[in-house]
Amino acid sequence: MQSVAQALEIVLQNAKPLPARTAPLTTSVLGLVLAEDIASDLDMPPFDKAMMDGFALRVSDLRNGQAELVIIEEIPAGRTPTRAVGAGQASRIMTGAPIPQGADAVVMIECCETLANQKVRVNEPRARPRLNILDRAKEMRVGEIVLRAGTRLRPQEFGLLAAVGRTTARVQPAPRVAILSTGDEIVEPSITPGLGQIRNSNGPMLQAQTARAGADPQFLGIARDEPQHLRSLITEGLRRDVLILSGGVSAGKLDLVPGILEELGVRALFHKVAMKPGKPVLFGVLFGRDPMGSAGLETSQTLVFGLPGNPVSSMVGFELFVRPALRALMALPPGPGLVQATLTKDHPYRTDRPTYHPARLSWCDDAGWAVEPTAWFGSPDLRGLSPANAFVVLPEGDHVHRAGDRLPVLRVENDF
Amino acid sequence: MQSVAQALEIVLQNAKPLPARTAPLTTSVLGLVLAEDIASDLDMPPFDKAMMDGFALRVSDLRNGQAELVIIEEIPAGRTPTRAVGAGQASRIMTGAPIPQGADAVVMIECCETLANQKVRVNEPRARPRLNILDRAKEMRVGEIVLRAGTRLRPQEFGLLAAVGRTTARVQPAPRVAILSTGDEIVEPSITPGLGQIRNSNGPMLQAQTARAGADPQFLGIARDEPQHLRSLITEGLRRDVLILSGGVSAGKLDLVPGILEELGVRALFHKVAMKPGKPVLFGVLFGRDPMGSAGLETSQTLVFGLPGNPVSSMVGFELFVRPALRALMALPPGPGLVQATLTKDHPYRTDRPTYHPARLSWCDDAGWAVEPTAWFGSPDLRGLSPANAFVVLPEGDHVHRAGDRLPVLRVENDF
Repeated sequence: MQSVAQALEIVLQNAKPLPARTAPLTTSVLGLVLAEDIASDLDMPPFDKAMMDGFALRVSDLRNGQAELVIIEEIPAGRTPTRAVGAGQASRIMTGAPIPQGADAVVMIECCETLANQKVRVNEPRARPRLNILDRAKEMRVGEIVLRAGTRLRPQEFGLLAAVGRTTARVQPAPRVAILSTGDEIVEPSITPGLGQIRNSNGPMLQAQTARAGADPQFLGIARDEPQHLRSLITEGLRRDVLILSGGVSAGKLDLVPGILEELGVRALFHKVAMKPGKPVLFGVLFGRDPMGSAGLETSQTLVFGLPGNPVSSMVGFELFVRPALRALMALPPGPGLVQATLTKDHPYRTDRPTYHPARLSWCDDAGWAVEPTAWFGSPDLRGLSPANAFVVLPEGDHVHRAGDRLPVLRVENDF
Repeated sequence: MQSVAQALEIVLQNAKPLPARTAPLTTSVLGLVLAEDIASDLDMPPFDKAMMDGFALRVSDLRNGQAELVIIEEIPAGRTPTRAVGAGQASRIMTGAPIPQGADAVVMIECCETLANQKVRVNEPRARPRLNILDRAKEMRVGEIVLRAGTRLRPQEFGLLAAVGRTTARVQPAPRVAILSTGDEIVEPSITPGLGQIRNSNGPMLQAQTARAGADPQFLGIARDEPQHLRSLITEGLRRDVLILSGGVSAGKLDLVPGILEELGVRALFHKVAMKPGKPVLFGVLFGRDPMGSAGLETSQTLVFGLPGNPVSSMVGFELFVRPALRALMALPPGPGLVQATLTKDHPYRTDRPTYHPARLSWCDDAGWAVEPTAWFGSPDLRGLSPANAFVVLPEGDHVHRAGDRLPVLRVENDF
């Protein structure tokens, strides 16, 4: 049986970034990783530019910052100056407009008084050459790399890509994740369960976890405990980047999934992990040939996770193994990982395997991370997850954890 | 001129949760707030349930945990037991299946050895009544409230809602946010700018910021500096919950926006904030009549933000004012707000207004938050935002901030 750390290492060894794709730069690529270097197609700004509304003038015309100048033109943003500013002259200019020839500074409008006869009185003792002028190409030069492959696409990167004329880019795509619930006892949420049946709560939960991780969930439905039906749905799931099977992977007599996976070419790399809840966690890989055809090199084609049917086991299994895998497929660092937190009250606990116990993690600017285990009666207790926002890791054995002790906590949320 | 804190208070006074709507429980409602109490429609589990694969039996049959029992039935998950377990009998049972009448414990399969003649030898010294049985209604009773209005929809809430049969729920909807870029000098990213023109980088950036905040961005295009065109697009934008205008709100001669907003019934509540970058920030409200018709009570119908055209001013203005407003419309607490962080190196800085300077914020389990200002030459410097993930707040005046000083930092990202 693997430890959690060993199991995670096996997962990450098999989760390499997906092939890059060209995508339109809509909000659907927010948070994805850029897969190409981006060069500017222009100087930015493309011209010497006014940074204030005011008057473009020649500093040499001023005495102690003062002068009366003749207004020769008005230059709104988006227009091109038509006249050079000569001695004793000024052009009214708007923020963002190109500086006219001859001018070497912009005096802000608040320091100017317009007079009759197309004249302006200027009073700006701080005037100096280049005042309120943004020089051409100060931000970037044509041909210069402004974003490197590997950069994550945040709002400012959207702005930069637009500034250099990009409406599409090569990105590491969001993994397509098939989610398949299994078991004759499982019915859709819209159905009132008959005796012996339970509603499929893991399907919606896994879809939400997948979406929260930035990947693209595709629910395949509920497979009956029947080889033909299972095989057909698993085959469908193996066409995606990741297949998550909910239920059907423990050692029970009717758990058909492991056999069918093997038959379909999935190599199981582990099927038990020393943890609670959720010991029976299967991880396997469907290998394919390198699409570039390089000498039959094997590449992982679909990652397969078999998660236990109990809801808390399922949630923990996803956060410990699936989420880091999805991040690796997207070329993101593993995250969220563990933080050390201070226990807020005594918590005696006995367990035979390291236990991921639902907990409330909070942050305080003075004291750092604090954690309090929440009420929970075991892996079927889905309701016990609602007051929780993390899992505190309790070591195996019989311990009285004391208030003030530091314990590792698995973060699963990244909200403020 | 308002301080940032005063301005934010004015914004939040006018940003009340939107009317609730019924929505299907797809991943598009992930992160939204529930607007109704949710009651269970059944006992959960609906029957005494096996928590392990093994044998259901009567503890009174065991001596020191041992016995040889006759196997009378096999109960897979999803099936109903047909026979009561009598003295000397046991039924093979799968995880999740209903406990047959007569049985009072489940002994796990690993402690059982099946013999010839439909018999099983059991050896489980820890056997006691209710072992490995999850009692009916242990998790929830029919009619019990399992989620309260105000709960945020995370993966575990998706699971719970499915468990109680919900496929839709009343939620606080994501605000619809119209984004309107303004200015004759602005061209779409796909166009190579002519002399005096610049590409619309704020439009894509604001759309990405809106999406990151969990709201629904709708880009209306670029309005020319022409009253008819502006009026028609602003009128369109005022049909949404929020209208963001990019550019066109400073005091320049061609800045037509404030006049048109007033004409269309938008009441400006502030138009300047003591901050850098981004002093000219307009906030206004289009009031409407209460849709419930209660005596002409005014309700805010559309929140209007006019952000400066410079990209960094635009980004800071959004994060300081628009994002908290969007969160309030969604009934979420303000967040992200400020954290105190330790400056990692000396940083002399002179400014005449509190300045939100691009910075790199990092977290270390030992030392807490650390912040380092990033290279930046002012509000047009969009490229300077790419190495940054936060804004350090530098006070007005001439200061030498020392390594080790604590400074407030505006968090804008919530990634691990």
